[in-house]
Amino acid sequence: MRDVAIIGIGIIKWGELWEKSLRDISVEAALNCFDDAGTDRVDAITIGCMSSGLFNRQEHLSSLIADYLGKLYTPSTRVESACASGGLAVRTAFLEVASGVSDYALALGVEKMTDVSGGGATSALSSASDYDYEAFHGITFPGLYALMAKAHMDRFGTTREQLAQVSIKNHYNGSLNPNAQFPFKITLVQVLSSTMIADPLRLFDCSPITDGAAAVLLTTVEEARKLNKHPLVIISGVGSSTDTIALSQREDILKLGAVENATRRALKMAGKTIRDVDFAEVHDCFTIAEILIMEAIGLVKQGEAGPAVLNGLTALNGKFPINPSGGLKSKGHPVGATGVGQIYEAVSQLRGESGKRQIPNAKIALTQNMGGSGGSSVVHILEAR
Amino acid sequence: MRDVAIIGIGIIKWGELWEKSLRDISVEAALNCFDDAGTDRVDAITIGCMSSGLFNRQEHLSSLIADYLGKLYTPSTRVESACASGGLAVRTAFLEVASGVSDYALALGVEKMTDVSGGGATSALSSASDYDYEAFHGITFPGLYALMAKAHMDRFGTTREQLAQVSIKNHYNGSLNPNAQFPFKITLVQVLSSTMIADPLRLFDCSPITDGAAAVLLTTVEEARKLNKHPLVIISGVGSSTDTIALSQREDILKLGAVENATRRALKMAGKTIRDVDFAEVHDCFTIAEILIMEAIGLVKQGEAGPAVLNGLTALNGKFPINPSGGLKSKGHPVGATGVGQIYEAVSQLRGESGKRQIPNAKIALTQNMGGSGGSSVVHILEAR
Repeated sequence: MRDVAIIGIGIIKWGELWEKSLRDISVEAALNCFDDAGTDRVDAITIGCMSSGLFNRQEHLSSLIADYLGKLYTPSTRVESACASGGLAVRTAFLEVASGVSDYALALGVEKMTDVSGGGATSALSSASDYDYEAFHGITFPGLYALMAKAHMDRFGTTREQLAQVSIKNHYNGSLNPNAQFPFKITLVQVLSSTMIADPLRLFDCSPITDGAAAVLLTTVEEARKLNKHPLVIISGVGSSTDTIALSQREDILKLGAVENATRRALKMAGKTIRDVDFAEVHDCFTIAEILIMEAIGLVKQGEAGPAVLNGLTALNGKFPINPSGGLKSKGHPVGATGVGQIYEAVSQLRGESGKRQIPNAKIALTQNMGGSGGSSVVHILEAR
Repeated sequence: MRDVAIIGIGIIKWGELWEKSLRDISVEAALNCFDDAGTDRVDAITIGCMSSGLFNRQEHLSSLIADYLGKLYTPSTRVESACASGGLAVRTAFLEVASGVSDYALALGVEKMTDVSGGGATSALSSASDYDYEAFHGITFPGLYALMAKAHMDRFGTTREQLAQVSIKNHYNGSLNPNAQFPFKITLVQVLSSTMIADPLRLFDCSPITDGAAAVLLTTVEEARKLNKHPLVIISGVGSSTDTIALSQREDILKLGAVENATRRALKMAGKTIRDVDFAEVHDCFTIAEILIMEAIGLVKQGEAGPAVLNGLTALNGKFPINPSGGLKSKGHPVGATGVGQIYEAVSQLRGESGKRQIPNAKIALTQNMGGSGGSSVVHILEAR
């Protein structure tokens, strides 16, 4: 297996981009990535997009974007695993380079969620749950995560204030990120008095609807050393796992089995433990998700994540910062782009280019992307060399 | 790069399967594949499906199928490139094994096109064209291929009888295939008197709407030799390419650039030329498509495919049989399953297990899968060893 490095990263400002189309934002992020890399050589493209079909009535996105990017005839593959599609695109680009089939592989994540066709964004998103047994009967993702939040509060005594602290922390970090959709701080009073969405989750517990794209360029470590444009960042571990997509089918709705397994695989491949990792970007689609993920990646024991957040463990200046980018809550959640956006942030931190939100001496990062209510997860370990 | 073999193949009878769901047919094909392989070991799953979102309001299919297959926590990736999704699933499974990330990879293709939600199958399929510039204005795939047929007849003198012969040949082959949706012969008179769909294409020039699934299991050649259950079949070449998905953007609407490039890449990797290949399974979504593909893969010069079909070059007992399975026309076209079904047929032929439709001494096969009006194509070279 060939060693793989990330030599370019590109993003755009995420938000409600009414004046831009699906193809516009894809190309813009990819061109920013080429600029950063100092090369536009691409032997293969992988695109993470959850549902350009339901959102935009546009499948066949892999070819459409290759064409609009000026890369006609380049092999291009769209991958999908609901909101974990972006992470999976990076993993598939890794396979291209690691196998030797491609020397340069571009992973692009994109989702255009405003100005959509059909039943609107919430309806399209519900296709990430088990349609026959969940969505058809009316439950949406805020409802599914509210069930997990209620259970966590009941079993472990997790409090509303602890949940709120996830959002407050991430908005603080996001206020330092010029590409975030909502780059401002929020207070405990604001979270607790925001509109109820699905009890106990309020508006400020939920990530937003976002248009966005991000891209990263992969090649071999050998090639990266030759180019030598940026401090070297390698992908030392990749892990992917599935779980039931129906929450009702899990043995324990408070265990994210896909996150546990994907993390174990990625750490094993990298020859590391969670204690070796300096910081993480994780999938806080709802505040309770970040709590459950902290437990699933082994950072704290089950039931201990709530107090840990309140005590500052995961703050930007804490022992294990989580979501320095602002996370899904503040940076935004264009579902197919999110996993690639996480890699963007991790590389930026490992290069020491994150400005006001820079984590000092960050050498090893973990990124964790998730689909649905935990039905899939993709984890990467990145290292500065 | 590790050498890759196909050790298991599975399919179901394709057709209008009103009593079976998306998950039913996926699992059935995969279990048939495990039976054939004599093992159900799977380290990674890749699923080719064009649009379970628009057809069935079900994204996140990768996890759903892993779960229903009894393979919880196994990494699973859905890949999509319109009607080339199945071929792309096989290519991605190849990357899993070739890279060393996975030792056993299952590639599954599936589409459930009857009993669908929303605007029906034709509307969902139109999302494989450029939505903003083609589908939105009302053109469908029969219309796009009719434009190509008209142009080919005009420029090269291709006749209605030559087009019809593609369908007659494929139905003859399909009559020998117990898994085909329409396993019966048809006559010239039947083709020429069938309902006009988009002038000059009639009903019997068009592949049908189909529910279906197929699966293949890949591992290293080394592992395959140890198992030694079937005659060894290796994947010696993989090729993928894009083109514009909008027909209006092509320099020449009679050149399938994606097919040309994918074929060139696959043959180069295998160290072969088209003259070395014994037979092919190709993407005859419409009769004119098979004509254009014969020219794009280099079997005959541009403009010469029509007469060549009529002269029997591609008949089951011809010099270069095409679509011994019956092709998309007779076997059916469950879009995401089609590319995997082609690999099923090629392996069956190379093993010498194809019964009445067996091609004698078949040693090297080419499979060619295509998305939209040629916006993408995936080609594989398989060899009996």
